[in-house]
Amino acid sequence: MWSKNKRLMIVSGSSNIQLAKELAREAKKPLAKIKIAHFADGEIYVRFNENVRGSDLFIIQSTNTNNNLMELLILIDAAKRASAERITAVIPYYGYARQDRKAKPREPITAKLVANLITTAGAHRILSVDLHCPQIQGFFDIPLDDTWALPLFANYLYDKKMKNLVVVSPDAGGVTRARRLAKILHASMAVIDKRRTDHNVGEVMHILGDVSGKNAIIIDDIIDTGGSIVNATNAVKKQGAKNIFLCATHPVFSKDAILRLVNSVALEIIVTNSIPFQKHKKIKVLSLGKMLGKSILSIHKNESVSLIHKEILKRNLQ
Amino acid sequence: MWSKNKRLMIVSGSSNIQLAKELAREAKKPLAKIKIAHFADGEIYVRFNENVRGSDLFIIQSTNTNNNLMELLILIDAAKRASAERITAVIPYYGYARQDRKAKPREPITAKLVANLITTAGAHRILSVDLHCPQIQGFFDIPLDDTWALPLFANYLYDKKMKNLVVVSPDAGGVTRARRLAKILHASMAVIDKRRTDHNVGEVMHILGDVSGKNAIIIDDIIDTGGSIVNATNAVKKQGAKNIFLCATHPVFSKDAILRLVNSVALEIIVTNSIPFQKHKKIKVLSLGKMLGKSILSIHKNESVSLIHKEILKRNLQ
Amino acid sequence: MWSKNKRLMIVSGSSNIQLAKELAREAKKPLAKIKIAHFADGEIYVRFNENVRGSDLFIIQSTNTNNNLMELLILIDAAKRASAERITAVIPYYGYARQDRKAKPREPITAKLVANLITTAGAHRILSVDLHCPQIQGFFDIPLDDTWALPLFANYLYDKKMKNLVVVSPDAGGVTRARRLAKILHASMAVIDKRRTDHNVGEVMHILGDVSGKNAIIIDDIIDTGGSIVNATNAVKKQGAKNIFLCATHPVFSKDAILRLVNSVALEIIVTNSIPFQKHKKIKVLSLGKMLGKSILSIHKNESVSLIHKEILKRNLQ
Amino acid sequence: MWSKNKRLMIVSGSSNIQLAKELAREAKKPLAKIKIAHFADGEIYVRFNENVRGSDLFIIQSTNTNNNLMELLILIDAAKRASAERITAVIPYYGYARQDRKAKPREPITAKLVANLITTAGAHRILSVDLHCPQIQGFFDIPLDDTWALPLFANYLYDKKMKNLVVVSPDAGGVTRARRLAKILHASMAVIDKRRTDHNVGEVMHILGDVSGKNAIIIDDIIDTGGSIVNATNAVKKQGAKNIFLCATHPVFSKDAILRLVNSVALEIIVTNSIPFQKHKKIKVLSLGKMLGKSILSIHKNESVSLIHKEILKRNLQ
Amino acid sequence: MWSKNKRLMIVSGSSNIQLAKELAREAKKPLAKIKIAHFADGEIYVRFNENVRGSDLFIIQSTNTNNNLMELLILIDAAKRASAERITAVIPYYGYARQDRKAKPREPITAKLVANLITTAGAHRILSVDLHCPQIQGFFDIPLDDTWALPLFANYLYDKKMKNLVVVSPDAGGVTRARRLAKILHASMAVIDKRRTDHNVGEVMHILGDVSGKNAIIIDDIIDTGGSIVNATNAVKKQGAKNIFLCATHPVFSKDAILRLVNSVALEIIVTNSIPFQKHKKIKVLSLGKMLGKSILSIHKNESVSLIHKEILKRNLQ
Amino acid sequence: MWSKNKRLMIVSGSSNIQLAKELAREAKKPLAKIKIAHFADGEIYVRFNENVRGSDLFIIQSTNTNNNLMELLILIDAAKRASAERITAVIPYYGYARQDRKAKPREPITAKLVANLITTAGAHRILSVDLHCPQIQGFFDIPLDDTWALPLFANYLYDKKMKNLVVVSPDAGGVTRARRLAKILHASMAVIDKRRTDHNVGEVMHILGDVSGKNAIIIDDIIDTGGSIVNATNAVKKQGAKNIFLCATHPVFSKDAILRLVNSVALEIIVTNSIPFQKHKKIKVLSLGKMLGKSILSIHKNESVSLIHKEILKRNLQ
Repeated sequence: MWSKNKRLMIVSGSSNIQLAKELAREAKKPLAKIKIAHFADGEIYVRFNENVRGSDLFIIQSTNTNNNLMELLILIDAAKRASAERITAVIPYYGYARQDRKAKPREPITAKLVANLITTAGAHRILSVDLHCPQIQGFFDIPLDDTWALPLFANYLYDKKMKNLVVVSPDAGGVTRARRLAKILHASMAVIDKRRTDHNVGEVMHILGDVSGKNAIIIDDIIDTGGSIVNATNAVKKQGAKNIFLCATHPVFSKDAILRLVNSVALEIIVTNSIPFQKHKKIKVLSLGKMLGKSILSIHKNESVSLIHKEILKRNLQ
Repeated sequence: MWSKNKRLMIVSGSSNIQLAKELAREAKKPLAKIKIAHFADGEIYVRFNENVRGSDLFIIQSTNTNNNLMELLILIDAAKRASAERITAVIPYYGYARQDRKAKPREPITAKLVANLITTAGAHRILSVDLHCPQIQGFFDIPLDDTWALPLFANYLYDKKMKNLVVVSPDAGGVTRARRLAKILHASMAVIDKRRTDHNVGEVMHILGDVSGKNAIIIDDIIDTGGSIVNATNAVKKQGAKNIFLCATHPVFSKDAILRLVNSVALEIIVTNSIPFQKHKKIKVLSLGKMLGKSILSIHKNESVSLIHKEILKRNLQ
Repeated sequence: MWSKNKRLMIVSGSSNIQLAKELAREAKKPLAKIKIAHFADGEIYVRFNENVRGSDLFIIQSTNTNNNLMELLILIDAAKRASAERITAVIPYYGYARQDRKAKPREPITAKLVANLITTAGAHRILSVDLHCPQIQGFFDIPLDDTWALPLFANYLYDKKMKNLVVVSPDAGGVTRARRLAKILHASMAVIDKRRTDHNVGEVMHILGDVSGKNAIIIDDIIDTGGSIVNATNAVKKQGAKNIFLCATHPVFSKDAILRLVNSVALEIIVTNSIPFQKHKKIKVLSLGKMLGKSILSIHKNESVSLIHKEILKRNLQ
Repeated sequence: MWSKNKRLMIVSGSSNIQLAKELAREAKKPLAKIKIAHFADGEIYVRFNENVRGSDLFIIQSTNTNNNLMELLILIDAAKRASAERITAVIPYYGYARQDRKAKPREPITAKLVANLITTAGAHRILSVDLHCPQIQGFFDIPLDDTWALPLFANYLYDKKMKNLVVVSPDAGGVTRARRLAKILHASMAVIDKRRTDHNVGEVMHILGDVSGKNAIIIDDIIDTGGSIVNATNAVKKQGAKNIFLCATHPVFSKDAILRLVNSVALEIIVTNSIPFQKHKKIKVLSLGKMLGKSILSIHKNESVSLIHKEILKRNLQ
Repeated sequence: MWSKNKRLMIVSGSSNIQLAKELAREAKKPLAKIKIAHFADGEIYVRFNENVRGSDLFIIQSTNTNNNLMELLILIDAAKRASAERITAVIPYYGYARQDRKAKPREPITAKLVANLITTAGAHRILSVDLHCPQIQGFFDIPLDDTWALPLFANYLYDKKMKNLVVVSPDAGGVTRARRLAKILHASMAVIDKRRTDHNVGEVMHILGDVSGKNAIIIDDIIDTGGSIVNATNAVKKQGAKNIFLCATHPVFSKDAILRLVNSVALEIIVTNSIPFQKHKKIKVLSLGKMLGKSILSIHKNESVSLIHKEILKRNLQ
Repeated sequence: MWSKNKRLMIVSGSSNIQLAKELAREAKKPLAKIKIAHFADGEIYVRFNENVRGSDLFIIQSTNTNNNLMELLILIDAAKRASAERITAVIPYYGYARQDRKAKPREPITAKLVANLITTAGAHRILSVDLHCPQIQGFFDIPLDDTWALPLFANYLYDKKMKNLVVVSPDAGGVTRARRLAKILHASMAVIDKRRTDHNVGEVMHILGDVSGKNAIIIDDIIDTGGSIVNATNAVKKQGAKNIFLCATHPVFSKDAILRLVNSVALEIIVTNSIPFQKHKKIKVLSLGKMLGKSILSIHKNESVSLIHKEILKRNLQ
């Protein structure tokens, strides 16, 4: 097979070195040597410290800040000019994903802009995790493999052997995601329909579907400030739910999100390590290392990536 | 203003001449002269029968079949080579919109492919109606104005002066759309969660939210064969809904959809004329002519398109 | 050699499965598994049913209808997103080829548009048969191998051991093609110059060159409705030709072309299987399977394609 | 109209200043001030000596040598960077046009390469004269207006009031061109079919169609060394033609072409001034100035260019 | 003229609002209304608060941090999708300009990457100030007007009426810049050739040219940490220079640059306001407002930008 | 490694066949068979005379005339259409490099135009020698390896074992280049600051730095007519320099440059063979063959090119 003839190389940007190490270990490749520094004025400087000519190069970088995004673009540019044969941007957290349409006139579609920037810089393919919206796949014309944290969550929740489960979407936009988890866990579903009151003095949370007396899993893809998911938690509690678990792939955790979450009535918060954050005993971290490491190997060897999800999911859930 | 100096021209493809005439009347411009024919082998031939050099040209064409899509592309190519100054593809129904992501491995993203084809052919901008998914905006890097049929539906339903309204989404993917209508009409909401039974012998429709004794509006963007919306109608009826109205922007109406719809328990089916179909007294057609005609004028004059939605919506609903 | 390291895969669109099977047999590769279906509304759905990552993929599809063209584009998009390493569109019949220039103002150049669409979709190279006009090669900036049916026709006609041959071009545009066959068969040549009469009441066929008492081969690249080639046949007969053979690479055969041809004074109609059609004993079909199968193998192995024409031509004609 | 608001500017490259002056006079615009020079090593230097910002700029340059082509590209680059609003390359003679397909394997398609170079440099549209092959229109994706010298030739020949005319194509490739002139002049047609003799010792000229006792017009688009058209002249003379006229749009006139032509049995050689050459009394030059000047004005004013051909053609020939 | 028909609009990013106000005042246009905000996680949100359709839009933004660069790109994307007719990025300080070549293997060329990003986002033209290297003009294929602060420095220094001037380049790379100022001021020149000592224990500053007893102007384009220019100041002082002035267009002023500069032996530091910084009495700021405001007007009106430099320069220096 | 699987092929354009042979010998590959000819009118014709499908093809061509540049572009087009796998343009002398910025308004940036033309034609990478300006690297978005003649010059000069060396830049623009050589040779430096006299009656040469009694090496990248370097030679001599050596990578040698150089007071002129010229005993030619041959091999094998410079430089100078 062709891929045997290209050197596999994995390099880590500075956004998430811990995860990069884990997936490199899974792929049985040391991280390539690289210098990433900042000049006094904040400009980023990068240089590959080993030859990358002709390599099948994977660059690991979440784009959760403008600095991280720019660093990714510069890494790609350097790799391209240094004659890497194929450049895959491995993006555990794809920033700006929520700006994926014009919700109001004269707004940008920054998620598409970012896709264009990454392509222009010279990436040949993308490996991502739980894109906020699956249509972002179509923002790219280069091949993209989107992997899902769903098997990780399902396995972990299954092991708790809870009965009487309901999966709750905290808003209208997340119903499809909630439904996917509910189906795997054979759980029922609920949706929160949040409305401003008539004189805009407050907000009412209507819960469509039944949560009373049930163990509730509230699932979202991103927890940012944690405000809306904690509000959802309270509403679900008020309706009589028993234990409440919060699930989200991407722990953006802005401002005092961690404090807000761990102080909420939720029993546990379950996230992945797509973005590094301060650990806490009430926050369970499921690592993406194995899934991304396997995906990199499959891409390199021209093997199917979609099979990995099945492999990871426990037999009883398949 | 610059736009005053370009000739506004509107030309109709063969997909929807009636709508084209209506919007041209609204824009106070006759349709430009064009020849569209088919050779004996089915190949499309087009030729502009008047000079289009330097014009601000709007081409009206729904892309609900491959022939219509190809005709649009050929019209754009002809316009480009004939030196039209600016070419706007006005696409009342954007075909292939439901293939907007890879739901399974090794599928295409045809909605993105179509966007690339239209851009490659030479379109400078797009005017669409209720794109299946708002992210399709980001499939284009040329300006796109997506207009909504929502004000038309809201006005029409408001005039019925019904009490005790619930807006129902027939599936998880349509919740956001249903919610938007519910908010305008100050209605409550429900969502249908369809599941296969354990041994796959049948399908169960769970209705999240309360419909019993209410007037229900089931809303979707597209009615294709009508199968799933009629199933939803039955489920809602079974749960005790009073009058049921079906709303959808795009009447694709494949196979015996019309028969199925008019024979259902729904009181009325409300659609737009984005695609022409055989009229029926139980199917109410709200014309897009005024909204698209106004939008064309606004684009031509560099005026805001987003204000048109407000203008059209009845004062009481704003 | 490099190519040994990529998997050769051949997949057939739905335009011409019989030919695809023949060439796959020649290339000693089974056709890859694929699902091609149509939704109720006519939209095409495709999905590769086996892994194509890193493959050297050949997609066989004539583009003789808009549906076939669109299917080809969607297949290419799916292959690109599924990470095929190299995608070759094998197009036995290239539709819209006759719209290769603006004959009148404000016409499209659809043959170029189609080239742009195929390139935009993601094809890396083209393998075609007897392009209507050799300049269409230049409509592409990706490598294109145009193969010729000429050796097949020459071999077949040579075996008839006819004396006193004249090759006739049915119009001014086909003279170069006719001349090429005439040279190989050491035949003389004639050209038909068709003119409207002065008051447009009819058409006169001037035959430049001598056909009287000769065996005539009238050659064209495409037979569409068959009207003009049958008219040419009559004119040639009237001038005293003996046996008349009609040759054309592409049997488009629109409307009642087959009836018209088999009822004409021509002794035999000789075509290839670039497009499937209803067989008839007076119509001889020369298969492209061997030539295309060999070409695919040569492209895959980086061997010369141009040598195949020589190989196929009988020794005595070389 | 929009065009009124842009300044029309016409600038001449150094290939054909005389023609540029004529067409500028027709367009009632002085040629813009420009410096074109060569450095000691032959590199071209250009600089616009007046402001071209926002102008509708026409650059006149035949590309009959590599220097002229490169000069055109540099002029376009300078105009683009100096913010010309629209750049039209007016190319009376398009060089490399005969390399418009791969006649043999591993050849370039230089006519397409040149189209790509001109587009890459930044031209927005093309105005050409009698492209060697009409398909070259499709080598461009920017608008192209191809004008024809045919009306000039037809007018000039018509005024000679000759009877018994035959229009002769010197080879198979030029039959379409010859036929077009024959139709306008109500003349008959002939084609020369040149063949190598069996042992390659010489060449035989078969004339298809009758020339004996007729006034013959041999027409080609380009006269290069003049070898083949003079051979055709001799063959036609030998077959008993009376007066022979040679027509060609583009007087490339390589090597001793002029000598060869004026010493031939042809009565007169009729060409345009698309390329400058040493005048001779036996060579009639029909100027393109009026046609190109009018075309430039029409393009600038967004008026139809195709009407100009009709306007120029004498009433009796229309 | 065409430009009269487009609305001139000027909008300011958040990098340098003070300068934006000054140049808008010069151009007699209020700044357009815009919302620029940051989400909790640091992602940038922008929205134009007035209609920009068809406008000739100038976006003012220095790109001296990754946030500022990203903000510029997002502003351009929003403007493009909101149908601005022409988008000019006005970039007083172009960040990453010093990474304009690969100084070592496997480095990026970030200045080119940035040019590609800006073009991809949708800018139609650039207005810059003293690009670090004039070749960066060629990193763009869209028109770029680079304006110079040189006339501002020359005017200001001329007014000091100093005799016996020497202009010093602090390193080999800045000699051309120093020479340009020296020529205008009729001053002599010197260059500093900095070398590591043999065992790398220190650095020696060789001054080529004579500075003893002279008034020295040390000129650079950027002052970053101030380290090298202050070292140069000391070296020049040591060689007996009288008064020393430091000139630089771009006050990047990283870390404790200001402190270092004002504590140096230099009499005065003269910079522009391309980047905002904490004012200090020893640092003279010459505003770019007038020059950029005039340039914007000239670009808008299609008038020459290059004349502005002459206009600004005092008569005696011309 | 991947590269082992592609055939290495080297082909020479007609600009510098001698150098091509030398580097091919170094790379242990015969030059590939090619036909390069000119038609009577000067148009270039090329054809590869052996199969290049799937090859790793290096095309050697200096672009010191428009003919050579055009030949390179045509060779690339032919190679692309003949399915070469990777095309590297090896350009020992990159013409038009001095037009790398707009020095005055309304000039082109021809060095960038040339980069765009080469990329458009289809080159995948560039191998160059001493680009006039390192920023030209950034004119390309394809990988570019710029090699330096500096090690060759340093080795050669080192072997002369001269004491008391000064390296002189003949103008402000070359100081960086001079400094690099000075550092390697542990020499001091000088710069010539040429000024017009007040009334423009002549030119004064100021020499910054000390040359008196020293052995001077005047270095430039290009010697064109030789005028300015000979003037510099005279100025340096006048200031009392002992032996003077002239160094330049690219011997453009326009007009009577050779005569002027060999008649000057310089002891020796040292150049490379990037451009062929008439040999002369006072002109030492250092061949680029070894360096380019090694570079081609390294690129082909995906090994580091930057190490070659070190390898070539004598141990004592490293």
